[in-house]
Amino acid sequence: MSVLVSISIFPLDKGESVSNYVARAVKVIKDSGYPYRVSPMETTFETETLEEALAVIRKCFEVMEPDCNRIICNVKVDYRKGRTLGIISKLKSLEEKMGESIEKGLNL
Amino acid sequence: MSVLVSISIFPLDKGESVSNYVARAVKVIKDSGYPYRVSPMETTFETETLEEALAVIRKCFEVMEPDCNRIICNVKVDYRKGRTLGIISKLKSLEEKMGESIEKGLNL
Amino acid sequence: MSVLVSISIFPLDKGESVSNYVARAVKVIKDSGYPYRVSPMETTFETETLEEALAVIRKCFEVMEPDCNRIICNVKVDYRKGRTLGIISKLKSLEEKMGESIEKGLNL
Amino acid sequence: MSVLVSISIFPLDKGESVSNYVARAVKVIKDSGYPYRVSPMETTFETETLEEALAVIRKCFEVMEPDCNRIICNVKVDYRKGRTLGIISKLKSLEEKMGESIEKGLNL
Repeated sequence: MSVLVSISIFPLDKGESVSNYVARAVKVIKDSGYPYRVSPMETTFETETLEEALAVIRKCFEVMEPDCNRIICNVKVDYRKGRTLGIISKLKSLEEKMGESIEKGLNL
Repeated sequence: MSVLVSISIFPLDKGESVSNYVARAVKVIKDSGYPYRVSPMETTFETETLEEALAVIRKCFEVMEPDCNRIICNVKVDYRKGRTLGIISKLKSLEEKMGESIEKGLNL
Repeated sequence: MSVLVSISIFPLDKGESVSNYVARAVKVIKDSGYPYRVSPMETTFETETLEEALAVIRKCFEVMEPDCNRIICNVKVDYRKGRTLGIISKLKSLEEKMGESIEKGLNL
Repeated sequence: MSVLVSISIFPLDKGESVSNYVARAVKVIKDSGYPYRVSPMETTFETETLEEALAVIRKCFEVMEPDCNRIICNVKVDYRKGRTLGIISKLKSLEEKMGESIEKGLNL
């Protein structure tokens, strides 16, 4: 089974530059050890169970709670039985259907 | 503290009419006992801790998992310290700022 | 045809209290004349064409742009052919499926 | 100015495998000529004005409307004055804040 989760989380009480805070959540996700990808509007990771996914989301809040008064978070879940490593296979499938390559990332 | 959560959850493998499945999740939220409101695009509820909120989300998945192969879910969280019953106070505050009444619900 | 749209829009550079700004967008939607409902996390309205819906979204930005430097907006669209007044019928259908009443609004 | 938009769009009446339909929207975005990145849960692109962004969204619907009866779409907008090429600079800023590299894409 595959639980694909994308999360966007940031404080509302810290002004318009929030990357310092977003970085904390991305570090939580990176350190979780699950496959993940950071994109410009959210970070996606993949677990095998919903429990694992919710535990990561909880930790993302935990690293913001100490000094943030208001936190806005958006989560998308794509839960699918019988899928493996959807974080890769979804884009692969897309390219096959399109018959052409797509921009799948960044080289900074 | 106030954790406002809105959730939209439905199966992707059951055709275009999904209210039978959405009803299961709304029942979970209603039966949870937390303050809640159903709107046309999502259901909102409010807890005091994130743990409570995540437990409700997990239950919403549990009532769909047995017979749904693919589930799409969108969650928004508005976490705010020092707020009480935001599910009511946010709309009250909005009406005060506007100086006029707004449509806040449905009488079917 | 029915285009149900829910929108959440707020500035990121105005501190944690943003209802003054949210009120501007809700007023745009109310004044548009389309059926609408305000809920604690977003405002939903319904048009017959996508063009009409996008025009409302554009106006919501227009009333924030003059004095907001960074604006965050989430939009959900539920487009369905052959549906009429989905803003009401979706909740009606939900109650029928559940066989019990649900909280569909607020009396402040 | 920079209008970052991420979009997730798919039909609800075509069963659980929808990449054929998603591919149409991704092709619209690619062919628009704006900077874009496809990630596992949404596609992000960047324009200089909101009008340009809304025109792309409209086209994404246009390529699904002919044979889809119900379409679900999620859009996030991050509008920011004085930013250039946020689709790259947001991730760059994140890496600087973290002091370590992050997974920013896929090599299939």
